[in-house]
Amino acid sequence: MAKEFVKNVTSMQDDFAQWYTDVVTKAELIDYSSVRGSMILRPYGYAIWENIQKELDNQIKATGHENVYMPLFIPESLLQKEKDHIEGFAPEVAWVTHGGEEKLTERLCVRPTSEVLFAEHFKNIIHSHRDLPKLYNQWSNVVRWEKTTRPFLRTLEFLWQEGHTCHETDEEAHGETVRMLNVYADLCEEFLAIPVVKGQKTEKEKFAGAKYTFTIESLMHDGKALQSGTSHHLGDGFAKAFGIEFTNREGKLQTVQQTSWGFTTRIIGAMIMVHGDDRGLVVPPKIAPTQVMIVPIAQHKEGVLDFAYDLKEKLSQTIRTGIDASDKKPGWKFNEYEMKGIPLRLEVGPRDIDQGQVILVRRDTGEKETVSLQGLESHIQHTLSDIQNNLFKKAKTHRENQTTTVTTFDEFKVKLSEKGGFIKAMWCGDDACEGFIKDETGATSRCIPFEQERLAEKCVCCDQEAKHLVYWAKAY
Amino acid sequence: MAKEFVKNVTSMQDDFAQWYTDVVTKAELIDYSSVRGSMILRPYGYAIWENIQKELDNQIKATGHENVYMPLFIPESLLQKEKDHIEGFAPEVAWVTHGGEEKLTERLCVRPTSEVLFAEHFKNIIHSHRDLPKLYNQWSNVVRWEKTTRPFLRTLEFLWQEGHTCHETDEEAHGETVRMLNVYADLCEEFLAIPVVKGQKTEKEKFAGAKYTFTIESLMHDGKALQSGTSHHLGDGFAKAFGIEFTNREGKLQTVQQTSWGFTTRIIGAMIMVHGDDRGLVVPPKIAPTQVMIVPIAQHKEGVLDFAYDLKEKLSQTIRTGIDASDKKPGWKFNEYEMKGIPLRLEVGPRDIDQGQVILVRRDTGEKETVSLQGLESHIQHTLSDIQNNLFKKAKTHRENQTTTVTTFDEFKVKLSEKGGFIKAMWCGDDACEGFIKDETGATSRCIPFEQERLAEKCVCCDQEAKHLVYWAKAY
Repeated sequence: MAKEFVKNVTSMQDDFAQWYTDVVTKAELIDYSSVRGSMILRPYGYAIWENIQKELDNQIKATGHENVYMPLFIPESLLQKEKDHIEGFAPEVAWVTHGGEEKLTERLCVRPTSEVLFAEHFKNIIHSHRDLPKLYNQWSNVVRWEKTTRPFLRTLEFLWQEGHTCHETDEEAHGETVRMLNVYADLCEEFLAIPVVKGQKTEKEKFAGAKYTFTIESLMHDGKALQSGTSHHLGDGFAKAFGIEFTNREGKLQTVQQTSWGFTTRIIGAMIMVHGDDRGLVVPPKIAPTQVMIVPIAQHKEGVLDFAYDLKEKLSQTIRTGIDASDKKPGWKFNEYEMKGIPLRLEVGPRDIDQGQVILVRRDTGEKETVSLQGLESHIQHTLSDIQNNLFKKAKTHRENQTTTVTTFDEFKVKLSEKGGFIKAMWCGDDACEGFIKDETGATSRCIPFEQERLAEKCVCCDQEAKHLVYWAKAY
Repeated sequence: MAKEFVKNVTSMQDDFAQWYTDVVTKAELIDYSSVRGSMILRPYGYAIWENIQKELDNQIKATGHENVYMPLFIPESLLQKEKDHIEGFAPEVAWVTHGGEEKLTERLCVRPTSEVLFAEHFKNIIHSHRDLPKLYNQWSNVVRWEKTTRPFLRTLEFLWQEGHTCHETDEEAHGETVRMLNVYADLCEEFLAIPVVKGQKTEKEKFAGAKYTFTIESLMHDGKALQSGTSHHLGDGFAKAFGIEFTNREGKLQTVQQTSWGFTTRIIGAMIMVHGDDRGLVVPPKIAPTQVMIVPIAQHKEGVLDFAYDLKEKLSQTIRTGIDASDKKPGWKFNEYEMKGIPLRLEVGPRDIDQGQVILVRRDTGEKETVSLQGLESHIQHTLSDIQNNLFKKAKTHRENQTTTVTTFDEFKVKLSEKGGFIKAMWCGDDACEGFIKDETGATSRCIPFEQERLAEKCVCCDQEAKHLVYWAKAY
């Protein structure tokens, strides 16, 4: 017999960080390696990423973008061409100094992001307004030399896509920046069942080299926020530094307007912390590698396994269906697939077969129901869709409960320490206040939401006039 | 009006290397960058890779493998654990020595291949024969510090998949090694229309750390060979060095048997050099991002563009169909899509519309035919399939014409210098002869083919008894 340890995770309440570590390892999403700060994406973790990737890639192509692939290495001199960019990234890049036995004459950095490589290429291939817009995307790995790391949330290396586009006008680039933020937001809400707040980053928090940065921010179960995708209007900063010019419709030389936008494996961390519970992971049906797991009961009895395999084959035509026919005990299997967050468990034993029925158990609510074989497939489809909606609704309710409106700094501190979550408060727009709030409370400005409200006339921190409503939170 | 330079490539006969460079750049597969030896995969080049990837990924999954993702960096001490492996790879790895402002206490190499990372992980997750086989695959970028580089064929960084598996027995690992070689061979022959010779690498040419290496070898238009995919039986070398042990069916500790196998963007180089001609690229229909390109004729005339777009939409349901409705001249468009090797061009003008017909032009033969709109789709399907078969047949005939059987070393030298191509000759199995042949002729042993013949009793190079038939060739 196999070893049949039942896996458990630490309770969220007791220790959220430990709960998270337990889930990512025990649900077999990742493993650690001897490479500091890097993770191994195990088959289950990678399969979730593949599903996210497939969906996002479809959206990226549907919006007219083409995939390309740029080099991994960036010569130091190239990285230095855009001043703000190098300042922002220099402290966190890995440097290659030797190739084989040779010392390089110029250091190469391992790409932390690829704006400069795209800029160099755009300069080569863009000459006329007829060459615009250029709408490119790249799927790749990037490296940022982080001191403290945590699987998915902050790792030395991560997987992502980075979009890079060039446009004739500022307005068109703005439109693209908004459009791709919406693609990210829709992916989060419709596929990952994660509600997001859309807004703009403050000057302090924007991307190094951008004119402005749009972001989607989500809220984790422990009340901390997570930046879940960003879209940058780069203006003409890189274009000027690299000389990306085109002959415009009036026959004059003009500099392009650029955008870039990225979405990463980090979102899997968000999925875990938004939907997970004390029995482990909960994966939304739309991105679940396995949507239904069949567990045969009394499978040694004649006909049970044949029946279960037939059922798997039938369901697999429209539903991602797995089966565990190993000789482990049903109890072990129930626990295992709850830990892995598989949306539905389907139990079928000899008595069920006789009665033409199966048992379905929902991962999200624990509800158990007996369902006739007739119309089973459409019943499952319907239930999966209900689970998807329910997860989103639950997450949204949680976020609403964890969002507090404040008008004074005292209230800010009290509510943040009592409840965590998002604090909505007015801000004067001054760097100093933003810094002061961070130093005093640990909360950072998450975004200036697109949906503005006028909560008060004064900044929550000083006596100046309020300029913007801001979402503040402690964040990952 | 747009600039309408008609692109030309150097003739193959005049300068094959320049022809190749012209094709990869003018067909817009790649661009160079300031990163030495690395290439930019442009949308068209990357789309071809995506199609190859999709097909191979399906095959890899259909044969029971799961995708995972390992870190990019390998600590020096980890790489050194398997002696033959580090010896083989040390001269060609890139070293990261600094992270941000800090000097690292241990250098990290950028993965040239990931055997050691997989080995470390396998040790963690394999305990019992129940955990076997482990059938993993990874899609990633790797880096090898090559001195001389050429797009696709030899680049500092390339994209590939690397399979890594663990098995209970030597026989099972052997079976896997053969199976995956066959997957590669079928992909080459059926999708890329590239005929391959299957065989085993000599000791000298095998993978650093392998027990033995199987290979598929293809022949380029200029008579040089290209290693097109390799599959390695690793034996227990890595498993012993890393302690990958399991409790076997008799309850005893045993070391696993491993395999690894890889297929890279290099194959695009093979596709170019096997099928291309003096008008540019020729892409086999099964992997062509665009299978049919519609070029409207006299498109300013009423109804032409509407008709062409309708046709595109109709065909797109089953055929990858493009349309160029730009205001460039038809002649420019013909040239452009011939350069890009699109299998079929579809011309449609006002007269054709009146007569309910279109004109189809094959890229492979240049044949032009008028085809009725009725049954057009199935006619195109049929023609695409014919092009696919024709490309394979042509390539196979070419290879046969360029393969020579020799029994003496003089003949070897004469035939190689006269005709190039594959030289089939017997070999005693001695390293010294293999080395001598290489030094004297520039040809390397490509493989000991699985299909052995007894051409002679003696080695082509010495007086010893012949052990194997070997394919020799100058190679990329």
